[in-house]
Amino acid sequence: MLNKIAEGKTKIVYSSTSSDEVFLKFKDDITALDGEKHNVLPGKGVINAKVSAKIFSLLEEKDIPTHFVKLVDDTTMKVKKLKMIPVEVVCRNVAAGHLVKNYPFFRKGDKLKEPLIEFFLKDDLHHDPLLSEEHLKIFGLMEEKEIENVKRITRRVNEVLREFMEKLGLQLVDFKLEFGRDKEGKLRVGDELNIDCMRLWDLKTGESLDKDVYRKGESLEKVLQTYTKVYKLIVGGEI
Amino acid sequence: MLNKIAEGKTKIVYSSTSSDEVFLKFKDDITALDGEKHNVLPGKGVINAKVSAKIFSLLEEKDIPTHFVKLVDDTTMKVKKLKMIPVEVVCRNVAAGHLVKNYPFFRKGDKLKEPLIEFFLKDDLHHDPLLSEEHLKIFGLMEEKEIENVKRITRRVNEVLREFMEKLGLQLVDFKLEFGRDKEGKLRVGDELNIDCMRLWDLKTGESLDKDVYRKGESLEKVLQTYTKVYKLIVGGEI
Repeated sequence: MLNKIAEGKTKIVYSSTSSDEVFLKFKDDITALDGEKHNVLPGKGVINAKVSAKIFSLLEEKDIPTHFVKLVDDTTMKVKKLKMIPVEVVCRNVAAGHLVKNYPFFRKGDKLKEPLIEFFLKDDLHHDPLLSEEHLKIFGLMEEKEIENVKRITRRVNEVLREFMEKLGLQLVDFKLEFGRDKEGKLRVGDELNIDCMRLWDLKTGESLDKDVYRKGESLEKVLQTYTKVYKLIVGGEI
Repeated sequence: MLNKIAEGKTKIVYSSTSSDEVFLKFKDDITALDGEKHNVLPGKGVINAKVSAKIFSLLEEKDIPTHFVKLVDDTTMKVKKLKMIPVEVVCRNVAAGHLVKNYPFFRKGDKLKEPLIEFFLKDDLHHDPLLSEEHLKIFGLMEEKEIENVKRITRRVNEVLREFMEKLGLQLVDFKLEFGRDKEGKLRVGDELNIDCMRLWDLKTGESLDKDVYRKGESLEKVLQTYTKVYKLIVGGEI
């Protein structure tokens, strides 16, 4: 790892010897509410790096284009350098969070008749506002064709992830993807894919096994227990 | 006018002798901020009824389907009974309001490269949240084909209104439409079309000539002066 290129709330990007690749180092920080809530959870960096690597490998096996190259150490992934699109793409199978809070149509836990894809601008200052597809185009964030491509890839990721999680006894309630363009301009799933960016409920008990445990204000011990439990299910073995 | 069917913040719906038609009576009330701000402006009912009648007539002349039948007295329109869709359809030519407040891409007054159409749920409790086209479908509010139809009609209304306002020395910044289905299921522009639901700026000075004058907290005299000024431009003559 060479120079630090960027540092976010939970990850650091370092340059590599190749101009086409960078390193993504996962920190132990956990945040919520646009960064207003913040703690350090020893071991979370390892969990998130390894869970991400596992899920990205799974997607690559299914021919879904991602930035993943390989895990280089316990907390670091080597990834293709992407020009990131500052949009969070959310896919929902079951109503929770924003969908329940902001609209009167569903209660928490209601199954949607088909997966719902939503776009949010990555902009803490404006509290990550919802974007329509017209916004994406007029704001110059994505073109029509790219929007269709992003939706197609997101639906495919949903199919793969949902099946994978169900086999582990987990319900994939929703998840968030971020996309970027590689040097050829090809769209790839970037960023991370782990317990921080999806809702997973125990298929039998309905218990939250994701960052909602932290958002709800449970103790950090309980949060770490939850992350560790899901890690063991997804990656297997001890940390 | 027979029985009161419904009463909103600024209008009352009465039944008529025909089951296909209702009366829409415009009140003198003016409200803003989801109804939190509220005043009575004597004469506003007449202004809004007559401006609405004028604009609906203009649209009908251009073969745009609306609920308008005729003006029956100074504050009352006879209209086709519609099953209203609880969605506000906003069309913007110039950045203002929500678009400037919630997104970092435009400053107030920036011209959009093409008209932007947005959908908002009519739901004061949830502060009229933005809806994507996926939301419209999954919430059961509109089907794909209807969304296309609504967008097509809205763009046409924009062309007609923009040209009409420009001839009067007014810039059509944005406007809001509501749609409903008549007894044959045909989509029609319903509700009202007046100074309450569009932003109009003086083409030369940029001065606001619309409800923003009220939102900004100007005196009620100033608000009434503004409404009267626009009335004279649009309808012609004295009130």
